[in-house]
Amino acid sequence: MASLPDPIKWENGTASGEPGTVSRGGEVVIIDQTRLPLEEKFLSSKDYRDVCEWIKSLRIRGAPAIGIAAAYAAAIAAFEFGSRGEIDYKLDVALKEINDTRPTAVNIRNILARLRKLDLGGKSVGEVFLNEAHKILEEEVESCRRIGQFGLELVPDKAVILTHCHTGGLATGGYGTALGMIRAAHEAGKKVMVLADETRPLLQGARLTAYELQKLGIDFKLIVDSASGIAMKKFKVDLVVVGADRIAANGDTANKIGTYNLSVLCKEHKIPFYIAAPASSFDLSAKSGEDIPIEERNPDEVTRFRDCRSAPENISVYAPAFDVSPAENIVAFITERGIIRKPFSANIAKVVG
Amino acid sequence: MASLPDPIKWENGTASGEPGTVSRGGEVVIIDQTRLPLEEKFLSSKDYRDVCEWIKSLRIRGAPAIGIAAAYAAAIAAFEFGSRGEIDYKLDVALKEINDTRPTAVNIRNILARLRKLDLGGKSVGEVFLNEAHKILEEEVESCRRIGQFGLELVPDKAVILTHCHTGGLATGGYGTALGMIRAAHEAGKKVMVLADETRPLLQGARLTAYELQKLGIDFKLIVDSASGIAMKKFKVDLVVVGADRIAANGDTANKIGTYNLSVLCKEHKIPFYIAAPASSFDLSAKSGEDIPIEERNPDEVTRFRDCRSAPENISVYAPAFDVSPAENIVAFITERGIIRKPFSANIAKVVG
Repeated sequence: MASLPDPIKWENGTASGEPGTVSRGGEVVIIDQTRLPLEEKFLSSKDYRDVCEWIKSLRIRGAPAIGIAAAYAAAIAAFEFGSRGEIDYKLDVALKEINDTRPTAVNIRNILARLRKLDLGGKSVGEVFLNEAHKILEEEVESCRRIGQFGLELVPDKAVILTHCHTGGLATGGYGTALGMIRAAHEAGKKVMVLADETRPLLQGARLTAYELQKLGIDFKLIVDSASGIAMKKFKVDLVVVGADRIAANGDTANKIGTYNLSVLCKEHKIPFYIAAPASSFDLSAKSGEDIPIEERNPDEVTRFRDCRSAPENISVYAPAFDVSPAENIVAFITERGIIRKPFSANIAKVVG
Repeated sequence: MASLPDPIKWENGTASGEPGTVSRGGEVVIIDQTRLPLEEKFLSSKDYRDVCEWIKSLRIRGAPAIGIAAAYAAAIAAFEFGSRGEIDYKLDVALKEINDTRPTAVNIRNILARLRKLDLGGKSVGEVFLNEAHKILEEEVESCRRIGQFGLELVPDKAVILTHCHTGGLATGGYGTALGMIRAAHEAGKKVMVLADETRPLLQGARLTAYELQKLGIDFKLIVDSASGIAMKKFKVDLVVVGADRIAANGDTANKIGTYNLSVLCKEHKIPFYIAAPASSFDLSAKSGEDIPIEERNPDEVTRFRDCRSAPENISVYAPAFDVSPAENIVAFITERGIIRKPFSANIAKVVG
């Protein structure tokens, strides 16, 4: 098995020390995803503000991965402020700062809500949060493996699978969601061929999906996003599977910009369109896609390609990071708790409610 | 009126000289489109092989523009070989070489066929071809202006228009086809807002459409190709208009990769989808899109932009330059001879047959 770098881990410290001790001893370490595949550069810090910056600048990205990063950031903040027995004012402000790093992926919000609900019982909040962060990381990896196993039945042998953006080990705790499903099929001995959308503007498909698939020895072809339609016809695509940044109660799903176009093309081509995502990506307080905020990014991400400027200076740009695929275009959700089929409102409530 | 550089012109020579003379005196000049918008670099040559290289490397591009370039290349070749009164063996070989520069756009083929049918009457073939090339250039500019005028009725005031790739002055003899229609509406005093797809992999939208719209003072926003779906909803797009590289007898249309996706999204959103193209882009010998060869480009165009690499080395890429939009997704063709509506087979035969 090819080894992939860990997207995020805690190093050189345990959760059993006194307040302050762990923070000084341990640190959170990520691989800088903006540098891949050109270089494997690791970043480490003991300051939650750095983790916030990493999330904002997409050095760590992928809805499940930034949820985990938020948990570690919260633990570091709790150590810094020496919080004990309660979420005091300073920690509360820090948690809000962590919450506001990126607006669309609900995983950050869900995970911070989970931390806020923990029984602190007079203990060091840093210690409690850090233990929970470790647990969240383990759970997310396990969720991916279960998503992969549940998804197996949806992948025929000799499957041609189209995917968008990057949903592999680096985007999660490890292993991946949509890419985890592809990986599980490959590991189960099924022959799969992947069509990987490059995913402008930040090219997570070209940079990260291609990097992971190459390391894993899974057959794939890279395409520009707008070649998805002709590729569906030419390669007789069997299914499209992508991840999610937030899934509303009715099944409407926010995911990387371009996912909506794929969902429409799947309808046109009668290709099943699946979402692979852990329970932490659902937001039952959002009734539909209308309730999901769509992050708009810096126009520079569109007017340049990495370090190369592509457009004239001083132009107007529309740069949404996500779009919403309506529930009607989605055939099923693959979660760690099983496959959710229609009717979505009832079944989503049952499985993740 | 903002001035745009000429995409192609003949300089420092006339068509009235003796064989050889004109070739020595005159030369074909283009603006290198691969360098835009970073620099306005002009290239000139008296060698048809250079013109072939310019076409292959997309230094000049756009179906009508490369048709004109092919006509000038043919004239230069005829002067070089001193052909008189007939297309002799060497010129025939050169014409085939010019014909084979790019396979999808039919304009090159249509224009070379037109040259081959000319009455040479013992004259210098270079002179006859050069006169015809001048005529073709003038006709193509006039065609664009007429396309713009015919298209006016399809553009409401306060129109939001989405377009793909680049179909402006530089892609034609001047003025533009789809962009010419937008320009005509703007010049007629209609308020228009353009959503310009950046058009990966070579970013003709970001580099050239943005450059022209900015120079012309037409309001626009640049988007990544995969943001077209969300943009259709958010900005309430009134119409989508694109150019064509080859239109079959039944109306199936090959155009820049990604056009097919737009045609499907238009169907989904009930937005009219138009093709603006001169008669020289029709190929009545192609019964349907099945008969149109689709050029595949160098994988490097997908794995990098200019000098910026985005993907790992040694990966497999599918890099079609075009796709085919089926006639059923197209509402009308805007040509210099009028608007062609359904039934397409009968009406295309009537108007351009």
